[in-house]
Amino acid sequence: MAFSLHPRLAADGVPVARLALSELLLMNDHRFPWCILVPRIENLRELHDLSRAQCAILFEEIEAVSRALERVVDAHKINVGALGNIVSQLHIHIVARFPQDPAWPGPVWGFGTAEPYSATSAEQRITALQHCLPDKMGSG
Amino acid sequence: MAFSLHPRLAADGVPVARLALSELLLMNDHRFPWCILVPRIENLRELHDLSRAQCAILFEEIEAVSRALERVVDAHKINVGALGNIVSQLHIHIVARFPQDPAWPGPVWGFGTAEPYSATSAEQRITALQHCLPDKMGSG
Repeated sequence: MAFSLHPRLAADGVPVARLALSELLLMNDHRFPWCILVPRIENLRELHDLSRAQCAILFEEIEAVSRALERVVDAHKINVGALGNIVSQLHIHIVARFPQDPAWPGPVWGFGTAEPYSATSAEQRITALQHCLPDKMGSG
Repeated sequence: MAFSLHPRLAADGVPVARLALSELLLMNDHRFPWCILVPRIENLRELHDLSRAQCAILFEEIEAVSRALERVVDAHKINVGALGNIVSQLHIHIVARFPQDPAWPGPVWGFGTAEPYSATSAEQRITALQHCLPDKMGSG
């Protein structure tokens, strides 16, 4: 069956890049620099249902996105999470955290209400992230 | 430098097993069936600072613990998270979630106050988890 992005993820995120395994989205919430990786595998629900080979690629993508966030926003700490309690399609959150952010030191998930980026600031952040991803990461 | 478990993790968790890469703990909070993996690498802070080889082992351990939790408590969903905003020593949470649990569908981190197991129920859960881990997992 063909992969399709869950409508809730499509609504909450802005496309950044198509990586080898995953779609990379930016959460449309300027309170937190927050990316989401969605492996393009239909009906995948749990991290441990990935094959070893898929997992190796996913970890490379998590690493690349984490490093890109560190460079773009000088993150104090990276939070990585695969929850899926609301949207069951497997997706991995990668969030840059700061002692000054509104949810610190708690988790960002379920914290208050998303505050969308302006069109210009979303564009700037997406471009900056794209420039910090390794060239070889894309699926072409 | 020798690895030592962060005192906060040692205080909040009960030892379950010594795996090839990580110490496996059970969070002493009976509200949530909740394990923690702590790779035995000193001064490790971020998931993306693991080598590819370490990452591959860690994923096997996450997979084994997730499957053990599924079998022991018939989990509805597994949540996996590496936050580290309070305790910076890298540790990975693996939590069995249920629509009936008190934090559902929100995250467990920072939710209310831990409710310790009785000695007997902790012992039962630890034994059950140990029996569901693959034999080859241990570091001996």
